[in-house]
Amino acid sequence: MELELARELAQEADTKIVLFVMDGLGGLPHHETGRTELETAYTPHLDMLARESACGFTVPVGVGITPGSGPGHLALFGYDPLKFNIGRGVLEAVGIDFDLQPADVAARGNFCTVDGAGRIIDRRAGRISTEESARLVAGLRDIRVDGVQVFVEPVREHRFVLVLRGEGLSDAVADTDPQKEGAEPPMPRGVAPEGETTAALVAKWVDQARKYLSDKGAANMLLLRGFAKRPDWPAMPDVFKLRAAAVAHYPMYRGLAKLVGMDALPVGPALEDSLATLREYWGRFDYFFVHYKYTDTAGEDGDFDRKVAKFEEVDTAIKSLIEMEPDVLMIAGDHSTPALMAAHSWHAVPFMLRSKWMRADECGMFSETELQRGSLGTFAAKEVLPLAMAHAGRFKKYGA
Amino acid sequence: MELELARELAQEADTKIVLFVMDGLGGLPHHETGRTELETAYTPHLDMLARESACGFTVPVGVGITPGSGPGHLALFGYDPLKFNIGRGVLEAVGIDFDLQPADVAARGNFCTVDGAGRIIDRRAGRISTEESARLVAGLRDIRVDGVQVFVEPVREHRFVLVLRGEGLSDAVADTDPQKEGAEPPMPRGVAPEGETTAALVAKWVDQARKYLSDKGAANMLLLRGFAKRPDWPAMPDVFKLRAAAVAHYPMYRGLAKLVGMDALPVGPALEDSLATLREYWGRFDYFFVHYKYTDTAGEDGDFDRKVAKFEEVDTAIKSLIEMEPDVLMIAGDHSTPALMAAHSWHAVPFMLRSKWMRADECGMFSETELQRGSLGTFAAKEVLPLAMAHAGRFKKYGA
Repeated sequence: MELELARELAQEADTKIVLFVMDGLGGLPHHETGRTELETAYTPHLDMLARESACGFTVPVGVGITPGSGPGHLALFGYDPLKFNIGRGVLEAVGIDFDLQPADVAARGNFCTVDGAGRIIDRRAGRISTEESARLVAGLRDIRVDGVQVFVEPVREHRFVLVLRGEGLSDAVADTDPQKEGAEPPMPRGVAPEGETTAALVAKWVDQARKYLSDKGAANMLLLRGFAKRPDWPAMPDVFKLRAAAVAHYPMYRGLAKLVGMDALPVGPALEDSLATLREYWGRFDYFFVHYKYTDTAGEDGDFDRKVAKFEEVDTAIKSLIEMEPDVLMIAGDHSTPALMAAHSWHAVPFMLRSKWMRADECGMFSETELQRGSLGTFAAKEVLPLAMAHAGRFKKYGA
Repeated sequence: MELELARELAQEADTKIVLFVMDGLGGLPHHETGRTELETAYTPHLDMLARESACGFTVPVGVGITPGSGPGHLALFGYDPLKFNIGRGVLEAVGIDFDLQPADVAARGNFCTVDGAGRIIDRRAGRISTEESARLVAGLRDIRVDGVQVFVEPVREHRFVLVLRGEGLSDAVADTDPQKEGAEPPMPRGVAPEGETTAALVAKWVDQARKYLSDKGAANMLLLRGFAKRPDWPAMPDVFKLRAAAVAHYPMYRGLAKLVGMDALPVGPALEDSLATLREYWGRFDYFFVHYKYTDTAGEDGDFDRKVAKFEEVDTAIKSLIEMEPDVLMIAGDHSTPALMAAHSWHAVPFMLRSKWMRADECGMFSETELQRGSLGTFAAKEVLPLAMAHAGRFKKYGA
């Protein structure tokens, strides 16, 4: 659904929607058992919920498309991830909870190594440690460029974020990362006339950074890419007339939620912390996005058994979620992360929704195999929020 | 499918298509039995047809969207209801079988009550009776405005239709209904320069209407909204190269069918009347839209048992429909109207199609649960006509 149509249909109501996202939810069968991670896990509460829910699968972005965390979540928040792009610099800044302002320009940085002639030897400087990277960042913070305020923030290993703050900055600046070894990193330049001034400022900074790094050995140069500004999108709470909150511990997901206008609530790392936050703020919001990270981490690590264990951990919390009696309870994933692949994948993602306005499907379990009997079929993840809005009595009739 | 593609593919053939629409077809399970209205009804003929049909569900407009009668039917006639909008004034005129001309401008009217200062007390004048409304309308018909012919037609309770007929009229006129009590109805004004002249004519009429109504007590003012012209759309019989007829008793559905260019055949209110009309005109048309209203009425009234009984009534007619041997026989709904909700809903709608060019599915019954095994899956209602065209041998190959 287009956001403009959603805005037209949305109305307020006294109902609560909970979207519980298990990151990397979907999986693939174990070679020995033929059962996926979800099918291997003992999850009596999820299974009971499946028997009382409308079930199906979501396609995060499109058939065959493996999404990153950004597009996977944007879709669940009602934004078409093919239309709403977040620049890499912004995603990186958001991922470390940097408070990016609308006029800021952010870029992703890599420390790298170059030879005597300035040609790249290693684009990642041997993936130097996060600690070493932090020391280099501390030094870079002393660099001053007239006319602009510069922030440098460490991320992990060789990665950092560069943010420029000032008047009239543009993100029309080309990458200085040639994406291959043996080439010399080009100086920053504008990709459009409005980017020239900003490119010149970045060039001054890079020039000083090169000098500072030249004798640092482990990493003697840096590369910048994905210059971007914080997107100016319609805010999800405005469009959908919802007081919307994120219960997410990881900065990346808090940041994504804030980008679409949700309030990011304070929450600890454990599942019990999420439930405590939910209870505390229950009366103050209409919509809660609850993020559970560890299913994805286990999948990315290729650890089938740990992903199974994480599902079983989630299952214990489902009972508490049900007891809070949301009008619409959804269990979803931002994408699949099969342990077998040790990576995100394009596979459609298990989904279920419970409200009082539905016919329960004949799915005996919350599992990839059983959900195929679901009445929701396989549908676009960007339709998840419109579907929830309907079930929450928050959409008016279309046409007379 | 876009209409332009349909036009390109369509070819004539000696085949007959019947679309039997049960208004508000889809339902939700009864709390006690867990069975929907359709699943509760004894419908041996529909069930037999399901075993011989390709089955699935249609999504009238989009996921989570509850359609009005207009969009729900337009989709079944092959028109994307998000692109083809009917203004409320036109829908209202069409709903009382008013013969709207292409240059006419129609608006929906409400009788209302205002206080001494002209502020709205009740936007619906306490839903005055249809009879009282008709008396007021009779008085309003005496109002003359130079340069335009004015029609006022009663609808039901406090509602009426205003139609302006003349040269150069525009529908770019703002509502005079502020949609809330306590406000003073604004005078008609143009929402674009081309609407100014028409707005001035409407204002003259409203001014006289106000004077006439001022001492009428029950309703002393009126509100106008949804100024609209009859849409100038491609005609369905042209696009699809079909002689198309509507067998519909209610004015709203006759009107919708006429808007897309179908012939509205004379027909009585009973199901047997529809069958008689079908038989009488069988040789003269290629496509018949047959409308059955009472399933929706029962659903809207929240009367589960009556909706069940209406399905059983329809079932007796299905046998006769089958005996007429259409090449393509479809059973469909314009939207769901679960008795549980006593309202239209967004839920996908049961659908089946029988022709000689298909594989029968494993659906044992025509029911929400059984149709989930259907090979058609859940698809957009606007694809129903293209699908029928293919099964009727009325679409050419696309590409070489």
